[in-house]
Amino acid sequence: MKHTISNFMDSLAGSWRRLGTFIVSSALCIGMTASCANAQDKTDMDKNETLENLKTRRSIRSYQDRMPEKSLIEQVTEAGTYAPTGMGRQSPIIIAVTDKETRDYLSKLNAQVMGASSDPFYGAPVVLVVLADRNVPTYLYDGSLVMGNLLNAAHAVGLGSCWIHRAKEVFDSEEGKDLLKKWGIEGDYEGIGNCILGYPAQEAPAPKPRKADYVHFIE
Amino acid sequence: MKHTISNFMDSLAGSWRRLGTFIVSSALCIGMTASCANAQDKTDMDKNETLENLKTRRSIRSYQDRMPEKSLIEQVTEAGTYAPTGMGRQSPIIIAVTDKETRDYLSKLNAQVMGASSDPFYGAPVVLVVLADRNVPTYLYDGSLVMGNLLNAAHAVGLGSCWIHRAKEVFDSEEGKDLLKKWGIEGDYEGIGNCILGYPAQEAPAPKPRKADYVHFIE
Repeated sequence: MKHTISNFMDSLAGSWRRLGTFIVSSALCIGMTASCANAQDKTDMDKNETLENLKTRRSIRSYQDRMPEKSLIEQVTEAGTYAPTGMGRQSPIIIAVTDKETRDYLSKLNAQVMGASSDPFYGAPVVLVVLADRNVPTYLYDGSLVMGNLLNAAHAVGLGSCWIHRAKEVFDSEEGKDLLKKWGIEGDYEGIGNCILGYPAQEAPAPKPRKADYVHFIE
Repeated sequence: MKHTISNFMDSLAGSWRRLGTFIVSSALCIGMTASCANAQDKTDMDKNETLENLKTRRSIRSYQDRMPEKSLIEQVTEAGTYAPTGMGRQSPIIIAVTDKETRDYLSKLNAQVMGASSDPFYGAPVVLVVLADRNVPTYLYDGSLVMGNLLNAAHAVGLGSCWIHRAKEVFDSEEGKDLLKKWGIEGDYEGIGNCILGYPAQEAPAPKPRKADYVHFIE
């Protein structure tokens, strides 16, 4: 009887100990599940990563010499092609220039428009020129949306970028037209913008404050 | 002695049982940690979430009646204000219309430009009108970039959107000018586009294939 009681007491103590082990293990699990849930939340909130990306993209005006991998450039240009266009007519084209000689020549032509001789591409090794077909009524809006996707996608893959203007003047010039011919591009294309691309040489600048009356709610 | 051995055996059995409990609990934890690690990987790849967002945004042409929460609309408009603008001059403004009467009036004015009477806003309850200051040389590019950010941000927060054109014609009309005056907006603003916004009523359409010669590499 004593034995039985002892066994019972021991078994009871064992149960408590097992319960203790279970509680500790469960607590560990719950802890992990909680941190897992946080990660999961983050994943579910990855939509916000896009918002963050849109808000933290900056115009970069200083670049390292090194050329980004082609796969990165392709990810950026691919995102560019998915910009919406009027009636889905895809009026723009993207010329991805990594050849140094061509890049330098484009820089020279761009500087000439300003009557300057410095490099308007801030040393960036890549220039993505966007042009759009003037025969499509929405071409200028279309080309700008492609530029926007390129700039945002560049930031998304860790590259710096900046819209450099005067693509219109460059590709309206004889030298610009000769380039298009050389590249086998036919049609009435207007330069929309140059998206320069590369690894930033400096930290991104802080954003200017947004103007106070940017958004008006009519509600 | 028997008691002691019995206690020892019982204790041993208890240890095994506790070990079993621990192994099962640990396995559960490891399983959770593994799925947690997957979630973490996804979070670490959030740069690609932006690319995915840029690539999977579609123009939505069918909407539910229900109004999105204001916080969602604000997230979208905020992203719009962070679009780059020429020389950082922030030439655009965004008019976020949720008032049904105003939305319906804008729809009517927009339809009139086409000589139609149907709703060009496809039943979307929100219209984000982007206008830009004509005195800034880059205003049309600037306004388009804001539109691009609005469209991409809408998709990022789970809302459907579509660029509806003819904002220029509407705000060049007397009725449009009267609206701007009523809203207290002074200056030489041109309508760039209407970003309609709401919960999609249908699945997003598949993207059209991108044209073959969209991107040219000069390398």
